[in-house]
Amino acid sequence: MERPLDALNALKGKEVNVLLKDGTKLTGKLEAFDIHTNVVLSEATAGSDKIGQIFVRGDMVTYIN
Amino acid sequence: MERPLDALNALKGKEVNVLLKDGTKLTGKLEAFDIHTNVVLSEATAGSDKIGQIFVRGDMVTYIN
Amino acid sequence: MERPLDALNALKGKEVNVLLKDGTKLTGKLEAFDIHTNVVLSEATAGSDKIGQIFVRGDMVTYIN
Amino acid sequence: MERPLDALNALKGKEVNVLLKDGTKLTGKLEAFDIHTNVVLSEATAGSDKIGQIFVRGDMVTYIN
Amino acid sequence: MERPLDALNALKGKEVNVLLKDGTKLTGKLEAFDIHTNVVLSEATAGSDKIGQIFVRGDMVTYIN
Amino acid sequence: MERPLDALNALKGKEVNVLLKDGTKLTGKLEAFDIHTNVVLSEATAGSDKIGQIFVRGDMVTYIN
Amino acid sequence: MERPLDALNALKGKEVNVLLKDGTKLTGKLEAFDIHTNVVLSEATAGSDKIGQIFVRGDMVTYIN
Repeated sequence: MERPLDALNALKGKEVNVLLKDGTKLTGKLEAFDIHTNVVLSEATAGSDKIGQIFVRGDMVTYIN
Repeated sequence: MERPLDALNALKGKEVNVLLKDGTKLTGKLEAFDIHTNVVLSEATAGSDKIGQIFVRGDMVTYIN
Repeated sequence: MERPLDALNALKGKEVNVLLKDGTKLTGKLEAFDIHTNVVLSEATAGSDKIGQIFVRGDMVTYIN
Repeated sequence: MERPLDALNALKGKEVNVLLKDGTKLTGKLEAFDIHTNVVLSEATAGSDKIGQIFVRGDMVTYIN
Repeated sequence: MERPLDALNALKGKEVNVLLKDGTKLTGKLEAFDIHTNVVLSEATAGSDKIGQIFVRGDMVTYIN
Repeated sequence: MERPLDALNALKGKEVNVLLKDGTKLTGKLEAFDIHTNVVLSEATAGSDKIGQIFVRGDMVTYIN
Repeated sequence: MERPLDALNALKGKEVNVLLKDGTKLTGKLEAFDIHTNVVLSEATAGSDKIGQIFVRGDMVTYIN
């Protein structure tokens, strides 16, 4: 792997967990991301809450796995 | 979907929820956005408060869905 | 509307509310703004305090409506 | 007025109040400013404290009036 | 050593500890990093939690050792 | 005075007070500064603590006087 | 001394103290730094903890002396 964003590219279309800086944990399918780590998840959930598609601002991301 | 902002483009003219970093939840019609995630909503509400048109500074956005 | 700043342009010379990140709510006539959302209000008030003209640094703005 | 910094330009050499993000209120004569809102005040006071000339880093400024 | 990132380059493929700004301590194999200190760890753990591969946003990193 | 940094230039080689964002007050001779307000003081003290030469990262500076 | 980073250059290979924004005090030999004040220390300690080589992200640095 050359660059960290290569790891995100390999996750496109797959289910990921995204931890936000406010402590929220989102789970969903990684539809898109960019160099700011703006991300779009589809079929997202936060615990038992069903959210559907969601755009997360990159500066709120702690990690993605 | 190529880029995260494509998801916002698909939401133009539709009702969205915007969570701000101070915990405020806004609901309204997405009129405009830019690469900083500055957004303008029309007919916006925050809970039971009617706000009308509102410009939100991009760095206050946590997510949009 | 193409861009979020178009909404601010339409508000020039009109009375607006500006919520700051420290919770202060300012009301006044929008005299000027720029892409950083630096804003100048005239005849501004904060609750019952009369402030007159005020320059607000853009990064302190939460929203304008 | 075209741009917010025009308002600061009109205040050069006059007494201004500067609210800092840590809540400090400074009063003094506006000697200089730049696009980052770095400011220099002369004959500055903070409440009853006499400070004299002071350089304030722009990112600490909430507003100037 | 010329530049700080040279130290990270020497750690590629080795086990590292990453302290995040929220206090989380991650341990894992350093797979990739970039100039923002975005990092990817594989076989990562946080205390007794097994995480596997993880992408950490650079601005959350306090230090790497 | 044209620009705020002119005020710092006039202070080179003189004793200054630097207030940091964490509340620390440093006193010392201003040896160097740059546009980020990175500063180097010599013979610096923090209250009764003798520090000697110190490099302060610019984003930690509240004001210099 | 012309620029603040000249002071860091003079410290290369010498023992320095680095105060982080979370209050951690590191001591070690300054191996490398860059314009972001990313730093690498070798033989680093934090109080009585022995850390060895450590990469510190520049935005976490308060001061170096």
